[in-house]
Amino acid sequence: MKISEKRNTFIGCTAGYEEADIVLFGAPFDGTSSYRAGSRFAPSAIRKESHSIETYSPYLDRDLSETAVFDGGDLELPFGNATAALTEIEDYTAQIISDKKKPFMLGGEHLVSLGAFYAAFRAYPDICVVHFDAHTDLRDSFLGEQLSHAAVLRRIWDKTGDGRIFQFGIRSGEREEFLWAQKHTSLSKFGFGGLDKAIKEIGRRPVYLTIDLDILDPSEMPGTGTPEAGGVKFLELLGAINQVFHLNVAASDIVELSPPCDISGASTALAMKLLRELLLSFIK
Amino acid sequence: MKISEKRNTFIGCTAGYEEADIVLFGAPFDGTSSYRAGSRFAPSAIRKESHSIETYSPYLDRDLSETAVFDGGDLELPFGNATAALTEIEDYTAQIISDKKKPFMLGGEHLVSLGAFYAAFRAYPDICVVHFDAHTDLRDSFLGEQLSHAAVLRRIWDKTGDGRIFQFGIRSGEREEFLWAQKHTSLSKFGFGGLDKAIKEIGRRPVYLTIDLDILDPSEMPGTGTPEAGGVKFLELLGAINQVFHLNVAASDIVELSPPCDISGASTALAMKLLRELLLSFIK
Amino acid sequence: MKISEKRNTFIGCTAGYEEADIVLFGAPFDGTSSYRAGSRFAPSAIRKESHSIETYSPYLDRDLSETAVFDGGDLELPFGNATAALTEIEDYTAQIISDKKKPFMLGGEHLVSLGAFYAAFRAYPDICVVHFDAHTDLRDSFLGEQLSHAAVLRRIWDKTGDGRIFQFGIRSGEREEFLWAQKHTSLSKFGFGGLDKAIKEIGRRPVYLTIDLDILDPSEMPGTGTPEAGGVKFLELLGAINQVFHLNVAASDIVELSPPCDISGASTALAMKLLRELLLSFIK
Amino acid sequence: MKISEKRNTFIGCTAGYEEADIVLFGAPFDGTSSYRAGSRFAPSAIRKESHSIETYSPYLDRDLSETAVFDGGDLELPFGNATAALTEIEDYTAQIISDKKKPFMLGGEHLVSLGAFYAAFRAYPDICVVHFDAHTDLRDSFLGEQLSHAAVLRRIWDKTGDGRIFQFGIRSGEREEFLWAQKHTSLSKFGFGGLDKAIKEIGRRPVYLTIDLDILDPSEMPGTGTPEAGGVKFLELLGAINQVFHLNVAASDIVELSPPCDISGASTALAMKLLRELLLSFIK
Amino acid sequence: MKISEKRNTFIGCTAGYEEADIVLFGAPFDGTSSYRAGSRFAPSAIRKESHSIETYSPYLDRDLSETAVFDGGDLELPFGNATAALTEIEDYTAQIISDKKKPFMLGGEHLVSLGAFYAAFRAYPDICVVHFDAHTDLRDSFLGEQLSHAAVLRRIWDKTGDGRIFQFGIRSGEREEFLWAQKHTSLSKFGFGGLDKAIKEIGRRPVYLTIDLDILDPSEMPGTGTPEAGGVKFLELLGAINQVFHLNVAASDIVELSPPCDISGASTALAMKLLRELLLSFIK
Amino acid sequence: MKISEKRNTFIGCTAGYEEADIVLFGAPFDGTSSYRAGSRFAPSAIRKESHSIETYSPYLDRDLSETAVFDGGDLELPFGNATAALTEIEDYTAQIISDKKKPFMLGGEHLVSLGAFYAAFRAYPDICVVHFDAHTDLRDSFLGEQLSHAAVLRRIWDKTGDGRIFQFGIRSGEREEFLWAQKHTSLSKFGFGGLDKAIKEIGRRPVYLTIDLDILDPSEMPGTGTPEAGGVKFLELLGAINQVFHLNVAASDIVELSPPCDISGASTALAMKLLRELLLSFIK
Repeated sequence: MKISEKRNTFIGCTAGYEEADIVLFGAPFDGTSSYRAGSRFAPSAIRKESHSIETYSPYLDRDLSETAVFDGGDLELPFGNATAALTEIEDYTAQIISDKKKPFMLGGEHLVSLGAFYAAFRAYPDICVVHFDAHTDLRDSFLGEQLSHAAVLRRIWDKTGDGRIFQFGIRSGEREEFLWAQKHTSLSKFGFGGLDKAIKEIGRRPVYLTIDLDILDPSEMPGTGTPEAGGVKFLELLGAINQVFHLNVAASDIVELSPPCDISGASTALAMKLLRELLLSFIK
Repeated sequence: MKISEKRNTFIGCTAGYEEADIVLFGAPFDGTSSYRAGSRFAPSAIRKESHSIETYSPYLDRDLSETAVFDGGDLELPFGNATAALTEIEDYTAQIISDKKKPFMLGGEHLVSLGAFYAAFRAYPDICVVHFDAHTDLRDSFLGEQLSHAAVLRRIWDKTGDGRIFQFGIRSGEREEFLWAQKHTSLSKFGFGGLDKAIKEIGRRPVYLTIDLDILDPSEMPGTGTPEAGGVKFLELLGAINQVFHLNVAASDIVELSPPCDISGASTALAMKLLRELLLSFIK
Repeated sequence: MKISEKRNTFIGCTAGYEEADIVLFGAPFDGTSSYRAGSRFAPSAIRKESHSIETYSPYLDRDLSETAVFDGGDLELPFGNATAALTEIEDYTAQIISDKKKPFMLGGEHLVSLGAFYAAFRAYPDICVVHFDAHTDLRDSFLGEQLSHAAVLRRIWDKTGDGRIFQFGIRSGEREEFLWAQKHTSLSKFGFGGLDKAIKEIGRRPVYLTIDLDILDPSEMPGTGTPEAGGVKFLELLGAINQVFHLNVAASDIVELSPPCDISGASTALAMKLLRELLLSFIK
Repeated sequence: MKISEKRNTFIGCTAGYEEADIVLFGAPFDGTSSYRAGSRFAPSAIRKESHSIETYSPYLDRDLSETAVFDGGDLELPFGNATAALTEIEDYTAQIISDKKKPFMLGGEHLVSLGAFYAAFRAYPDICVVHFDAHTDLRDSFLGEQLSHAAVLRRIWDKTGDGRIFQFGIRSGEREEFLWAQKHTSLSKFGFGGLDKAIKEIGRRPVYLTIDLDILDPSEMPGTGTPEAGGVKFLELLGAINQVFHLNVAASDIVELSPPCDISGASTALAMKLLRELLLSFIK
Repeated sequence: MKISEKRNTFIGCTAGYEEADIVLFGAPFDGTSSYRAGSRFAPSAIRKESHSIETYSPYLDRDLSETAVFDGGDLELPFGNATAALTEIEDYTAQIISDKKKPFMLGGEHLVSLGAFYAAFRAYPDICVVHFDAHTDLRDSFLGEQLSHAAVLRRIWDKTGDGRIFQFGIRSGEREEFLWAQKHTSLSKFGFGGLDKAIKEIGRRPVYLTIDLDILDPSEMPGTGTPEAGGVKFLELLGAINQVFHLNVAASDIVELSPPCDISGASTALAMKLLRELLLSFIK
Repeated sequence: MKISEKRNTFIGCTAGYEEADIVLFGAPFDGTSSYRAGSRFAPSAIRKESHSIETYSPYLDRDLSETAVFDGGDLELPFGNATAALTEIEDYTAQIISDKKKPFMLGGEHLVSLGAFYAAFRAYPDICVVHFDAHTDLRDSFLGEQLSHAAVLRRIWDKTGDGRIFQFGIRSGEREEFLWAQKHTSLSKFGFGGLDKAIKEIGRRPVYLTIDLDILDPSEMPGTGTPEAGGVKFLELLGAINQVFHLNVAASDIVELSPPCDISGASTALAMKLLRELLLSFIK
């Protein structure tokens, strides 16, 4: 009998760093969550529960055994200091990209996307952002803070400027945000209307795909901090992801799963299945 | 620095009583609930959680800042004495109506609708009732009691007589109730079939709109005492409400949210969003 | 005043054994559940909560008062010894069948279906199996065990051989299981496609209908051990059951409700409503 | 194989009514609970969970096999009509007493004690009451109602008058109640001080023993509607019960367990163990 | 009938600001919580639930009707910016003190004590600190941050210097913290040993009393972010508070109740009872 | 920046296998649990949550940095086949012992102790067993099975024979078990009476120490499958452990933590603190 160390990874993501094409990592930060926190526990929950699903997708007829994903575990991020947390995320992501691998981040609250995006933007200055969410996230500041989950797309726009942010599923925000979006982003209310057109517009430019899980209807995803009735369904989301992967996805994330709000475990189960589908989508 | 009292109101409902068009109030009574009680906690939960949503509706493109709603807080009602509780509700509602304002009540179990209806019926003897619910609520008595949540529409009929009650979404009841309804009310099984016709029939008569949240599918509204599979969806309900507000809605209520059954908070979140949409629907 | 014993039965199932056409019983075993156990508590939860629903179905316009169902309560099954548990289930089911009654079993995990199937197979050697589930359950063994919930359909096939198992709603399994199914069973991915054809193929042969509740979407059925996003809806399932009951259903079961995962109670509520519809479906 | 009905009883309480010395029954009523309801679920929870404990007490070195207890199940009581509920309880209890058996009731909220007490008082006009509770329960009325859980001992006093009520463990109430008690009852604050003296005073008169489980510290009994810090411990309570059973206990009850507040199950487990000890205490 | 605004206050704390001796307010901030957040919900939970207890204390034989407490509600504090949050708390507290009233703050995480302490220190430069807690809270920084709940006593020491901090109940910390305490504070491990001596040492100097509820044993206070076995009991804590109020208590707080961890409600119940006792302790 | 694998270990247990003195591992099996399962989740919960406590013990004034513990992670054990599970545990433990290291196992249900004990017994034929538990665990079989958590000490006795098993804290079992214990083991009811004497009797013989966490009072340890009121307190248990470690402890385990029953997290927190104290106790 051989006694050895056991690693904890997302199911099927057992590649070593050198051989990997994709690097999965967790950004367990929820320090600016204004209502119910808890997304800090998402990456470890997803990783741990993942061993109850299969590596095979009957939707795509692919298996994680066909991929090479390194699971880097979770970053150690300071609560109460958003700036420091974002810097750590940015540095880690930049290293992955400079090693010619694709970063896939598990949040955490939506603000963490900003760190990964900054690294991607440095590497790919023409990058576009595809944003799936219930909320506009376009406030200039929230409770006086510019680095807030409610302002993350606005901060991204500070970098990209007009015409490079494509938002879908949006059904909540202040009137001012919706008005602002009309001038500066492409915002599709309630669902995925206009996704075809967006895909054409983006063309061969690299894409940062950020998925706030509250885009899903709370019936399917109750385990999130600010559930918003009237969302899209899992199969619709899978379809939209399918379309987006015709593009050149350079980096991606899933954010805002909140395990403490997910008593039944069904939200975590959905998130890990979605992650499997996303990782399999990188296979060409 | 000024130290002052803080009021607790539903978000955006900060008007004073005098200036208000609508008066929102809670009727936290669940004394006849036969199975899982808990709706007594609904008004305070809805009020408290409401500050996590926006005052703006992207569905209606209206904002609560365009309304004048006074939030009167919760009545203090005795448990175990339904008659006394209904009298207090009736008196409070009557005062609102006599002050030329519209009452909007948050239950509580469905029985509380009876108190508000009695006041509305006194003011508007030709009032019709639009009833959204999973259950017929047409028993003559329940466990020997005539004042029961399961008998509330029957008690209303005692006042209105035939032809003035319009029921939608009904999918549960005893065979006798369905047979009785064929003679005395207009009952639409499962969904909103026939709503157009009902609206025409009602015409310019005043309307009492009572919404038992268990009309919604339990996937979207698990937080209710007797969830019934096979319900309508949030967006269908919004659509139906939209239609009803072509009528002259004189009073309205939302009942049967049960926060203790709503662990994830998604049901309360839906209810407060629905309340926002309803309040905005009064704007002409 | 007469003081007498009180029996606990599913609502409306108060017939004595002799007069009964259908015998309902619980098989509270979840000893091989690989992830979250808890289905052992399902039969008693369904029985206890059932008194909050009506005996009348507005879907079928039938009432349990038109049936004669004996509720035999729960078997006492040893945990940790699947073989012994299955033998007890088989013997109990065989007795019911030999008394010319139809067995209806409430699991427990899916493995319990094997015991009831064995008895049905002995009585009806040409029996076919209609299998509603999210999972293939076709592994040859799981964690080294042949008697596992993940292998139950494979064990059934050991008896029936090819062409007599019809699977619907399947959306999870290993690639090998899907490949194996192509040769040995009729497997319909995701929904009820091909049910018409299956019904024709089965013809007048007797049918064992086994319903793993995780076929339902987790939005409607979160209370199950391994929720799988992308499932069928309650009304779709009712429709499919309706079709199946054109066949000669000789025995049936519902498995994998897990009350500890069902905090809101909505999953248990759905299961007991489904049971009512199933019992009413036996009426010709 | 013999297929027969299964009865649900508290563990070891399988005697028939005729042969029984003690009759156990549930009074699942919580209609006047002013805060968190839920004690209506206590009797069935205690009965169901009891099969996880043993019939043997290492404290008393006795076994339930040495007793003859009939478990009559739960009464069906109307919510929202306290008067009617109490009448049903009184009638049932009176029957038990007239059949020369001892009643043991499981609440329900504390108000149910009144029904059983009325029957006992009719049979034994000199009966004394030993009251274990955190609360005085001596209000003349509560929210305008005289039949309230907060007034139950006051209503009992209406019958017994001064000097026959002995209260222990009391640590919550209005100042007026404590002042009133100084004149009319024997009230021991916080614990069991003076129990010896009370026992002497009571002498050979019959005793009604009523135990509100919130006398226990919430660390041991969190599963109750109004937990009060600073309570007595389980072993102290066992000791006090031991003393009380030197008296002639004619009837007894346990009230105010609230299973919905008992997530871990530890409160229900304590209650059923306490019930076992109480039933064994009747053995002379 | 008069329709008027309803205020939400802690029970019995209905004085107006001008007439008040004590000002109660909430500081709902938990932005640096390193593990399970949730104390942001404590002040509103304590306020809301308080109406289920009495205003009378049988321990002190006093009633809140003898006090004049203004309940200022909750501050609105930005998450993710500890500095800004502390400034708001400090300003609010300073105003109270300059109006010759005593501040009583409900946290929130322990860091909020720093804001209130700063204001008290400015007004009373010779103030001493009595600290009840399971944790030393003496780290110089935590995850790189100096403004952390784990460093709050260290930050207070930055102001007071040696000999003015008295810590009790401490049973968790790094070795370095315990060593540091030997030189700079008076630290009593596990319980209240040495409290007499501390009281003499403090003499007539003003006192800031800060109570981290996790000083209590988790059996009595499970509802806190980092429960530590082996704590003091409620009655011990009451006794210690009694002693401390022989001193000149100038300001006080209760922190670290976490309602999301308090499923049974018993921890919140204890906290509000403790608050009542503390408010009554100010009566001379 | 260096991107590397992250290991999951219990806090402070980062030694490599070769250098380690103690090997910690999880045995996540609960297949024979007769009531509420869930202890399968204990080892990963303890490991994951451990990072919220310190490595330093103020009780022992020692730090985990002074130890060399290898954390081997969790074994993969088949549910539903107790024999196979025990063999895997035995083999793993035997390897540790043959490498001159001390095994420390985290259950799982109590049955897992048998596997580790078998390995220890083979290596140390004169080994004695110190057993801390609420239950006798001395049944010859349970529901017909000899390999049951309720029979584990009886199976151990099959190896050791009379006079080598020392049981403490026992407060639950069948009369027959207590009678059997009088002849074959040394059993101390309710607490640690006679521990001194047992320690003398054991002398220099090696000891297997097995701690079923339900020995603790449910107020401190609600998170276990069968909580038994009237247990020992955490500090008493620490004291008893202290005494036992004057002996030659060759192997040890902690079993029966059930995270699904531990909503507040306080039970898991206690267990991980206890584990820290136990690991530190091996330091001489």
